[in-house]
Amino acid sequence: MSQTAFSTSSNHDMPASITDSPLYKLINPDSIAFFGASNNFGSMGTSQLASLINLGFQGHIYPVHPKEPTVLGLKAYKSVADLPETPDLAVMVLPTRIVLDTIVQCGKKGVKNAIVVSGGFREVGAKGRDLEQTLIQSARRYGMRFLGPNCLGVANPHHKLNTTFLPYQGKAGFLGMVSQSGSFITQMFDYLSRTGMGFSTAISVGNEADIDLVEGLKYLAACPHTKLISLYIETIRDPRNFIETASAVTLNKPVIAYYVGGSVSGKQACLSHTGALSGPDRLYDGVFRQTGIIRSRSIEEMFDMASLFGNVPEPRGNRLVIQTHSGGPGAVAADACDREGLKVPVMPDAVKKELSRLVPHTGSIGNPVDITFSKDRLAYFSSIPGCLLDADHFDILLIYLLLPKHMFRRVMESMGVPENQIASETEKLIIELADKIEELVQTYGKPVIGFSFHAQEAFFIKALRARNIPVMQSPHRAARAVAALCRYTKWRKDRFELGGTVCY
Amino acid sequence: MSQTAFSTSSNHDMPASITDSPLYKLINPDSIAFFGASNNFGSMGTSQLASLINLGFQGHIYPVHPKEPTVLGLKAYKSVADLPETPDLAVMVLPTRIVLDTIVQCGKKGVKNAIVVSGGFREVGAKGRDLEQTLIQSARRYGMRFLGPNCLGVANPHHKLNTTFLPYQGKAGFLGMVSQSGSFITQMFDYLSRTGMGFSTAISVGNEADIDLVEGLKYLAACPHTKLISLYIETIRDPRNFIETASAVTLNKPVIAYYVGGSVSGKQACLSHTGALSGPDRLYDGVFRQTGIIRSRSIEEMFDMASLFGNVPEPRGNRLVIQTHSGGPGAVAADACDREGLKVPVMPDAVKKELSRLVPHTGSIGNPVDITFSKDRLAYFSSIPGCLLDADHFDILLIYLLLPKHMFRRVMESMGVPENQIASETEKLIIELADKIEELVQTYGKPVIGFSFHAQEAFFIKALRARNIPVMQSPHRAARAVAALCRYTKWRKDRFELGGTVCY
Repeated sequence: MSQTAFSTSSNHDMPASITDSPLYKLINPDSIAFFGASNNFGSMGTSQLASLINLGFQGHIYPVHPKEPTVLGLKAYKSVADLPETPDLAVMVLPTRIVLDTIVQCGKKGVKNAIVVSGGFREVGAKGRDLEQTLIQSARRYGMRFLGPNCLGVANPHHKLNTTFLPYQGKAGFLGMVSQSGSFITQMFDYLSRTGMGFSTAISVGNEADIDLVEGLKYLAACPHTKLISLYIETIRDPRNFIETASAVTLNKPVIAYYVGGSVSGKQACLSHTGALSGPDRLYDGVFRQTGIIRSRSIEEMFDMASLFGNVPEPRGNRLVIQTHSGGPGAVAADACDREGLKVPVMPDAVKKELSRLVPHTGSIGNPVDITFSKDRLAYFSSIPGCLLDADHFDILLIYLLLPKHMFRRVMESMGVPENQIASETEKLIIELADKIEELVQTYGKPVIGFSFHAQEAFFIKALRARNIPVMQSPHRAARAVAALCRYTKWRKDRFELGGTVCY
Repeated sequence: MSQTAFSTSSNHDMPASITDSPLYKLINPDSIAFFGASNNFGSMGTSQLASLINLGFQGHIYPVHPKEPTVLGLKAYKSVADLPETPDLAVMVLPTRIVLDTIVQCGKKGVKNAIVVSGGFREVGAKGRDLEQTLIQSARRYGMRFLGPNCLGVANPHHKLNTTFLPYQGKAGFLGMVSQSGSFITQMFDYLSRTGMGFSTAISVGNEADIDLVEGLKYLAACPHTKLISLYIETIRDPRNFIETASAVTLNKPVIAYYVGGSVSGKQACLSHTGALSGPDRLYDGVFRQTGIIRSRSIEEMFDMASLFGNVPEPRGNRLVIQTHSGGPGAVAADACDREGLKVPVMPDAVKKELSRLVPHTGSIGNPVDITFSKDRLAYFSSIPGCLLDADHFDILLIYLLLPKHMFRRVMESMGVPENQIASETEKLIIELADKIEELVQTYGKPVIGFSFHAQEAFFIKALRARNIPVMQSPHRAARAVAALCRYTKWRKDRFELGGTVCY
């Protein structure tokens, strides 16, 4: 992994090695017994097994089915007892009434890890609560750990594991996720693929009858693929444990939480969704502050922050310089950054002097630097940002990106590039420019963050992202994410210096 | 235009017909003299003329150039005096020092409308202020109206007019824009094309030496293509006039404003951008409230609101019902709507009874309605939303959309559709579903608003948009835009009933 803001060295409270984690084999199994898949795509279990196969899981998969000889092309077994080996993991997408029996059968076979996808437990009321108790007891009897019930399991693209019903074809990334909503994870697959960030491991904890949010958090804290962790929270069931663990984790890895139960309607929705009893918004705010968790106010903000935290070097302070070629977006960015508590210092005279050689006289050498319409479009990606990053007065460079294809086309045409080479030459030029920006980051060790109204799929944006230069989707989203990065960095530094007593 | 929330009948304070507007010929010219374009794409004027040609302007274009016999393939003229007719409009992208002389020459030719793109006037200090005064006097002498200086002019896709330096290839839409930042308009071309909304007419007013924000607003209020208006504001130069005009306009068309000068850094940036002296945030808030203008807090919010206001029928109240097939996004939406002051009422028993027949028992028939994993995926787009829209208890339906391709593929496979027809059959099915939703909107006359984390370019989302069903990019963005729609609708109703004394 490339060098970024936050070390991933493990903490004394965490497992020394990921393989020591009690969840290791559940999240990195070599073999899986799969209950509830058939050859009918109308069933959820079938979709889930299809996702697993689709991602190219490398170990053995043993579908268990009472009637079918094969399931999705794999040899099926009538019962878990018939399997040629004891699988590391059992995945159950079964009617509620037969889950308990299946747990016992798996226990007898020696299975130590299970994912219980099936619902119909605590979330449906008193009867379900009793069933869930029996489930817990049965699993304990056989020393079995399990996720769920009422969950979607695990997606670990680094291990080519995906037990959810949606296929994942994106990147194996650096963002770890623990979620009390399974759908929250799957629903973000498309978004996370599309924005190129991907994720390291996503754990859907469902009713948390055994493995809970906190254990998921601990696992990801120790996971070497995971640079930072996001939590989707409907309720914190064990506050003391959560606070202790999170306080330790945040010293090493940023943790971003989205809490959904803070309003009356949110609370109501959580209750019917996972049976979670949410608490008052302020209480959760307090917990997050105390533990150094960054609270995001929306889903997109969560992922904006993740992309920033996981990609850029640690900022030395919160003084921003903004570079633009368009006054409007520059002014909007300055306003947004100011409102988020970031500093947008006046351009010092020494830097102005340098800039006056690079910026046309129709532009502005204040902060934002606005080069307006310049003939030397390439200076925008090398000498100008170089000058700004070189100045001790700034900690972070925020750079506006508008690069419509036709502009490159005109540059190419003016350089006399023949028509049939314009597309390939444009790509070459874009890669050259993206390389230049990457070099600047390496030279100065300061965060360079783009913002643009372009689609995330645009070639230039993809090229920058591939070089760990995040490109935010608007000035406001950039400002919010950068502010969170600066707050967390300062909080973490203070806590190291002051010995663990600082509130976020 | 399709029937939507707000009538576009003109108000007594506004020109009775758009052709009576003093800006009509400037924004809808039949012939244009173009100063400052050459055959060199390094110059901004050339890019601007190229944009105009590129959009397919239907009238005559007369490039004026001291040396070139042709400019971008058009016959060029040495001076405006040589033109075979008096053009409706002169566009000037000239060095500051020759603008004044050119205005005089145009005046002598009888030209009555000009766009002065050139900068170097008030925004650069005392000397520029003097120049700007002379410019105003010269134009007055010849009865000439002009936009600018220091602006990008006008883009009116309905008239195939685009004087800015960026080509526009998107839709001729319903959103009118007046902006004190020219770049703000051009920078949004890509976004507005990509999200399929487009715009009706965008006016860059620059330094507002003659035509100002208020006159632009008046023009758009009378424009039959414009359903609603967005303003990008760095300063309000004539508050009394602004308040009077805006108060009249908002009764007929929604006006959304983005104000950028409210923070110290924003103010600073505005000053160096257009020489605008911004005022305190609260003052602007007061002006917006008093006039019924909706204030947006970010650029994306502005366009989210526009897409909602311009597409959906007027809501009768602010009671939302949320439909989802995934608990997480449903809970997030409920929480976000509640925080924005919208009502998410408990599902009434009568509706629950209906729903229990349509929603699988693993789902939830509360609000949000969560159908979870259903075999009848098509019910999601017909019988379930039909039942919810039919209920008197709800004014608005917010519907979550996740429709990955592979899901349609599985439906197709299970229906026995041959491999080579899956793509075309999927498109057919999507169109059928989108038609169903459109029918529901027509039947019940209530807003149906989608939200999705998918790209705006996804086929299903495009199909819905084409049927005036807006799809917001996240639950939070949906909640904010819907809340603004409800507030504006209520404010407008109150003001009609109470005779013009209500604050927004």
